[in-house]
Amino acid sequence: MECSTKGNIDITGCRVSLYPMTDNFSEVILGSFDKVDTRAVWSQTDLFSTLYRGEQESVIDATQALFMSAYQSDVHMVTELTFSKGCPGDSDADRYINGKKEKPNQEELPDDFPVKCKYSFYSFGEKDYMEEIATIVEMASEMGLNPQSAHYVTLLEGTASQLFVYFERALQYAHEHLNHYVLEATVSVNSPSEK
Amino acid sequence: MECSTKGNIDITGCRVSLYPMTDNFSEVILGSFDKVDTRAVWSQTDLFSTLYRGEQESVIDATQALFMSAYQSDVHMVTELTFSKGCPGDSDADRYINGKKEKPNQEELPDDFPVKCKYSFYSFGEKDYMEEIATIVEMASEMGLNPQSAHYVTLLEGTASQLFVYFERALQYAHEHLNHYVLEATVSVNSPSEK
Repeated sequence: MECSTKGNIDITGCRVSLYPMTDNFSEVILGSFDKVDTRAVWSQTDLFSTLYRGEQESVIDATQALFMSAYQSDVHMVTELTFSKGCPGDSDADRYINGKKEKPNQEELPDDFPVKCKYSFYSFGEKDYMEEIATIVEMASEMGLNPQSAHYVTLLEGTASQLFVYFERALQYAHEHLNHYVLEATVSVNSPSEK
Repeated sequence: MECSTKGNIDITGCRVSLYPMTDNFSEVILGSFDKVDTRAVWSQTDLFSTLYRGEQESVIDATQALFMSAYQSDVHMVTELTFSKGCPGDSDADRYINGKKEKPNQEELPDDFPVKCKYSFYSFGEKDYMEEIATIVEMASEMGLNPQSAHYVTLLEGTASQLFVYFERALQYAHEHLNHYVLEATVSVNSPSEK
């Protein structure tokens, strides 16, 4: 589970699932694929998600581009993101690594828009994992994302761009301090429950 | 994050989010709420999810009823489930506990239907967490759910009823052997990608 063969490699991955709540969901999802520059990541789409694997900065860049490209101002959409790194069973395969940490999508991103997010940060094999979670949440507070505690998740609010800057900082911290971690986030736009 | 105040209480929770990919998503979601008998759980709905908290059997029962009641044979729907128990910061509040492990929805469930599932089982503060994951996945194999390894998740296939029987067995094992765990599952029905 979570990995297939033994290894110990510096690969970040993200599973991105888009759920546009419209009859035209297929068009929205497929249309966003074409707008992502995937030259700096390995990518694959399965029944559930599109998976990007490679250097952390490049994986976040591709994830942000896919999410923001699927946004439609009149469609309620939820996106599920699973960032993961350091699984003891990960394999040195299915990745693009060239040491350049490229972000080819940052110049051509769509206009920014407001988002709500729930997320959980998980760290494995650490006795003091609750302290690491607190550190990660504190970073959201410093960035003005107004983290609110709820059962099993932390809630954030801001814009799409702010959220991905936060993900990059949080995952950079995790990369420097932790061996195996997962950030599970659910991002909602245009929910009728907000009105 | 994941919890608000200190405590050490035997409360299972599940966050259930329904994503029916149709223009009528609100009707599908709201219609399913009315069909769940919530007498054996504490429940609350926020922007992202409906949250059930209480005894493990009762929480799984309510979760299954909400998911199965939202099923429509002509609608692609994805459901996100976060089962969690044992967070060191959980509070002895927002729960229904009477020691009876009631499952009031089992007699009136809708007809069964095929599902695909991706899921990850997370155990915290344990050095041998990878072995616990392997045990949980082996249980899916014994139940005929054909677990397949993929990056960051395990894939399952079966019917809705089979899947929830598995969740109950897996979480029962976790309850007996682990302190703090999360089962994150995404269930898909009627995906056009399957055709």
